[in-house]
Amino acid sequence: MGDSTAAISGGGERNAAEEVSRIVEQSRELQDTAATLISRNSQEEASLRQRALALDSSIKRIHSFIASSVKKGNLDPKDAEKLVEELSRAWYTLTEGDAAAFLPSKSYGRFLKTFLGPINVHATRKDVQLKVKEEYNNFRDRTAYLFLFFPSLLLLLRSWVWNGCFPALPVQLYQAWLLFLYTGLALRENILRVNGSDIRPWWIYHHYCAMLMALISLTWEIERQPDCSQKQKGIQLFLKWAIMQGIAMLLQNRYQRQRLYTRIALGKARRMDVVWGETAGVEGQIWLLYPILFVLQAFEAYVGLLLLKIALVGVASDWQVVTCGILLITMAVGNFINTVQTLVSKSRVKVKAKLKKGKSKSDLLQGSTN
Amino acid sequence: MGDSTAAISGGGERNAAEEVSRIVEQSRELQDTAATLISRNSQEEASLRQRALALDSSIKRIHSFIASSVKKGNLDPKDAEKLVEELSRAWYTLTEGDAAAFLPSKSYGRFLKTFLGPINVHATRKDVQLKVKEEYNNFRDRTAYLFLFFPSLLLLLRSWVWNGCFPALPVQLYQAWLLFLYTGLALRENILRVNGSDIRPWWIYHHYCAMLMALISLTWEIERQPDCSQKQKGIQLFLKWAIMQGIAMLLQNRYQRQRLYTRIALGKARRMDVVWGETAGVEGQIWLLYPILFVLQAFEAYVGLLLLKIALVGVASDWQVVTCGILLITMAVGNFINTVQTLVSKSRVKVKAKLKKGKSKSDLLQGSTN
Repeated sequence: MGDSTAAISGGGERNAAEEVSRIVEQSRELQDTAATLISRNSQEEASLRQRALALDSSIKRIHSFIASSVKKGNLDPKDAEKLVEELSRAWYTLTEGDAAAFLPSKSYGRFLKTFLGPINVHATRKDVQLKVKEEYNNFRDRTAYLFLFFPSLLLLLRSWVWNGCFPALPVQLYQAWLLFLYTGLALRENILRVNGSDIRPWWIYHHYCAMLMALISLTWEIERQPDCSQKQKGIQLFLKWAIMQGIAMLLQNRYQRQRLYTRIALGKARRMDVVWGETAGVEGQIWLLYPILFVLQAFEAYVGLLLLKIALVGVASDWQVVTCGILLITMAVGNFINTVQTLVSKSRVKVKAKLKKGKSKSDLLQGSTN
Repeated sequence: MGDSTAAISGGGERNAAEEVSRIVEQSRELQDTAATLISRNSQEEASLRQRALALDSSIKRIHSFIASSVKKGNLDPKDAEKLVEELSRAWYTLTEGDAAAFLPSKSYGRFLKTFLGPINVHATRKDVQLKVKEEYNNFRDRTAYLFLFFPSLLLLLRSWVWNGCFPALPVQLYQAWLLFLYTGLALRENILRVNGSDIRPWWIYHHYCAMLMALISLTWEIERQPDCSQKQKGIQLFLKWAIMQGIAMLLQNRYQRQRLYTRIALGKARRMDVVWGETAGVEGQIWLLYPILFVLQAFEAYVGLLLLKIALVGVASDWQVVTCGILLITMAVGNFINTVQTLVSKSRVKVKAKLKKGKSKSDLLQGSTN
């Protein structure tokens, strides 16, 4: 760079002409290098993708072969266990190491395509993927505090300042915040899924439901005097449920991070796993978390039923009340089923623990038996 | 693969063990190859980024040197023109070719970070970038038809079925659609910007305003009898404006695609350019498009003023009416200023056309004088 500046400051037409032709030459070279690099990369990546896919299916095939050999008595269970142990290490290397970037990513789904278009959100580098996951966790942490703060503030102001009646604007601001929060969460979780996270699809659907509910609640007229305390009962209950949700989120976040770090340390989990509402491993906290989750789900269904009751009795018969009621009940039931399913699959894994001890192995088995 | 299956079907413990150790070996090899490829790529990409950046600044430096030499009389204007011609070809190669992927991308901005987290949406391969752009154009086309269809339907139903009064639900569905549409557009335009599009920031801010307005209009009570036709005048005007907007979008899309293809053919534009509301080149359509744009902006401001008037007179004094009025006027003024700025910069380019004839060259000049 220093040279060329000197050449230019030398002044004159010839120097400028020389410099320009040098730049033209450089731009051509750079274009060639870039084109070569890009095309070579796509070739090499395609070949790696093929190899990763082949290895993936080899592992699954040999795993099911070992399982059937043990059943037929052709293979000693102890030897089989050792082989499966080795296999799962290979599986871990494939799915958790650098090669994982070349395994086919999960399909994008309509939601992501509609909002973002056909852009690639699959990170090749593991450290980038982990940064995305970390940032998602931080986002959820920040969110959880706001989840506690906003509804608490609204409820406090209601009794201290607003004489028992919510004004419309603050509630609507809160609902708008919920809408954008859930949209953000749904987008981020879809992106995590593309990047190899094992998040259960339900938790994403759950956020679609929550988005819909926030949207509907925005169109919901906030009734005022007279009888506001009666008519606003649904909102009050919803805010109380939101506070509980905030507490549960904080507990879950803390617990999940611990569990994830423990499992990463044990080499059992893939680090992109996100399991909102799923629990395993850190026994002490389970006894706190599961009851809270179930109470929360029951309360969610209760609020839903109460909204339906309000609508049926005729206190507030808008369609929004009915729809929000149905959505809340749907979410409660879905959450309950998914939490129970997680519990059941965990205990199944424990029963079958002779052949397979960790999650990676149960993944393997699922893969080979599906 | 055929070999290994044969080995397995041979049965027995030894074969399984051999196959497992082969798989372990393969997984290690694959991991090594992947790690090598990824680290080599990041090195090579870093070096290309450096070279692209250096070339970019060299081009700008020599360009401003040529300009000042002409002013001082050290350089013959005709020779200078030839040199600038060559330079702009180098600039085009750099910014439009494969090397463009390694020029620093525009910063992501809060909006994208909040919704998506720290994921990379910058496509390295040109064909992927163009696919994103193409899909964005198609999305806008589809959108424009719906922009025509929905408000027309609502207005028709109002006079044919609803006896001159909008029911709340259909209007709110339309407003919810607007909200998600504008969110999608804002996300996609931010992504295009990251991928090197020259879209004016205002058009993205404009969509933020539109998002806000759709959100606010959702909380806006749709007044019914009595006097609904008076109270719903704002909604009616808004829908009429939306129909005009749909027509303008269709014209713009058609026009822009033609212009873009023309300019690509002439080698003047970078293909990631998106210019909603900007116009140049296809003279025939300009005389149709610009008047329509200005009429649209005037009508937008008129609807905004009317909303403010309604609020002041007291027909509907909700804060939503006032805010939507202010937002509409803001958008109208912003659109007007940006359209005029585009016009002015085009004519300036024409005046200065002796030294620089195309957009790429005016870009160059802006770069060197900033």
